[in-house]
Amino acid sequence: MNAKKGRAEMAVLSPEEYRSMVRRGEWPQDLSSEFCCEGYTQHGLVVLPRDWAYDYLLFCSRNPKVCYSCDATEPGSPHPPLLAPQADLRTDIGRYRVFKDGEVIDEPTDIKKYWRDDLVAFLTPCSFSFEGVLRSCNVNFRYIGTFTSKIPTVPAGRFKSVHTCVTCRLFKTSRDAVRAIQITSRFPTAHAAPIHIGDPSLIGIKDVYHPEPGRYNPHPTKPPPPQEPSEVMMFWACAETPTHLIVTAKPPLAITHCRGMLFISDWLTEELAYMEEVAPNLV
Amino acid sequence: MNAKKGRAEMAVLSPEEYRSMVRRGEWPQDLSSEFCCEGYTQHGLVVLPRDWAYDYLLFCSRNPKVCYSCDATEPGSPHPPLLAPQADLRTDIGRYRVFKDGEVIDEPTDIKKYWRDDLVAFLTPCSFSFEGVLRSCNVNFRYIGTFTSKIPTVPAGRFKSVHTCVTCRLFKTSRDAVRAIQITSRFPTAHAAPIHIGDPSLIGIKDVYHPEPGRYNPHPTKPPPPQEPSEVMMFWACAETPTHLIVTAKPPLAITHCRGMLFISDWLTEELAYMEEVAPNLV
Repeated sequence: MNAKKGRAEMAVLSPEEYRSMVRRGEWPQDLSSEFCCEGYTQHGLVVLPRDWAYDYLLFCSRNPKVCYSCDATEPGSPHPPLLAPQADLRTDIGRYRVFKDGEVIDEPTDIKKYWRDDLVAFLTPCSFSFEGVLRSCNVNFRYIGTFTSKIPTVPAGRFKSVHTCVTCRLFKTSRDAVRAIQITSRFPTAHAAPIHIGDPSLIGIKDVYHPEPGRYNPHPTKPPPPQEPSEVMMFWACAETPTHLIVTAKPPLAITHCRGMLFISDWLTEELAYMEEVAPNLV
Repeated sequence: MNAKKGRAEMAVLSPEEYRSMVRRGEWPQDLSSEFCCEGYTQHGLVVLPRDWAYDYLLFCSRNPKVCYSCDATEPGSPHPPLLAPQADLRTDIGRYRVFKDGEVIDEPTDIKKYWRDDLVAFLTPCSFSFEGVLRSCNVNFRYIGTFTSKIPTVPAGRFKSVHTCVTCRLFKTSRDAVRAIQITSRFPTAHAAPIHIGDPSLIGIKDVYHPEPGRYNPHPTKPPPPQEPSEVMMFWACAETPTHLIVTAKPPLAITHCRGMLFISDWLTEELAYMEEVAPNLV
């Protein structure tokens, strides 16, 4: 599959086809999952030892727009019982990041050699989940970038003093922005509505056009294109936030997905829509 | 305050006024909180030792319509940080049930003598939270009863093999029932939409008119009045379900509220509404 040309082909893959390709090493190295399996939910991964699991689940429950816990495995099991019981979280993600005491020690394409009987894997939503829904509703947007805001998260146990990571998108018109808010509000388990509209400096992003290398991610995000006067910039909470938890709290072992390479579940985002009562005459 | 005559007076109490009366022993013994502090959220309590907290929070996250975790205290703290930081969960509920190894050992009006540094208190929603909203929307219903259905819950750790407790209400017309579904759908943190409409036997309630004494609650619920032909019976998941978890899993110590006597938070149910886009012309 050619990473430059395969977008339509990527979109029609089933989640099981996608995961099998990744598992067998047939997926192009470091190709983002953004346009894969259009319509299906995508999830960030956090793997922690069992004795860190309560603090993380409590953090999720206190910060549901940042990282709602969509599924949690039994200790030692790599199979997410609700989202995709046939999947294997050790092999079905394009690339992982392994942290020892808060430091990255490896970025492997599978984590079999790190797996232990006491590990618990959590899946939290990625905003790629709702991008397909926006496209299917003819909502016009472009660009995606990841930034660290100054919006505080609510601490939980050893996970504290961490700001919210956000994704940034540009919507062509106010109408597109309003529709995006309405549509994403229907998905409380996929970050729900944006947490900020407009001026990035108001949430502590100093210069959106010159992204700094992340404190926790050496690869700076791509800057946005110059904004057209009619365009609206909006920000959603992002599944990269847990990486900051790991770097600050320093659990002895932790494993996450790599940015842009998410887990794809068996569920359509539309299956998880909360309210269906948006009337065509209100659009 | 006269328990028979004080309903209007109870409705206009502020949560802090209500909790202070309970705390000072000025609240009538065993008077339900159902009609108190109209519009504010009401919550069931589950207190567990810290080493049982992960299993319970995981159960909540896997069964969000049954018992969404609205707030969790720090170990040893009786103050719910999100819902009412000034409240004291050891004294601000009308009556408690204390379980040792799954058996009820006490039903005190405060739990100070049982409190320990390793206890964590969870607050989950009670359907009393949305009753005030239904009344304020002129939705006509009568009767409330609590039953154990045969609807299974998703197990989590040591909490397993438990069926869903439900509350039962009678709605005057189909329109009232439809409005109740629409309105309660807006409150995902307060049981959300009903889980069953109509024939109670389809969810394993053999004879709704002759409630059996609960396996875990010696006081049988009041039976419903004879149903009018135009009425619709509907069932919501209920905050009594965690009692069944405790009785079956037998943690060394656990404390809950007593049925009908809930914790009242500082939050209006409407403040927690999820979607506001229900248009008057769709009603």
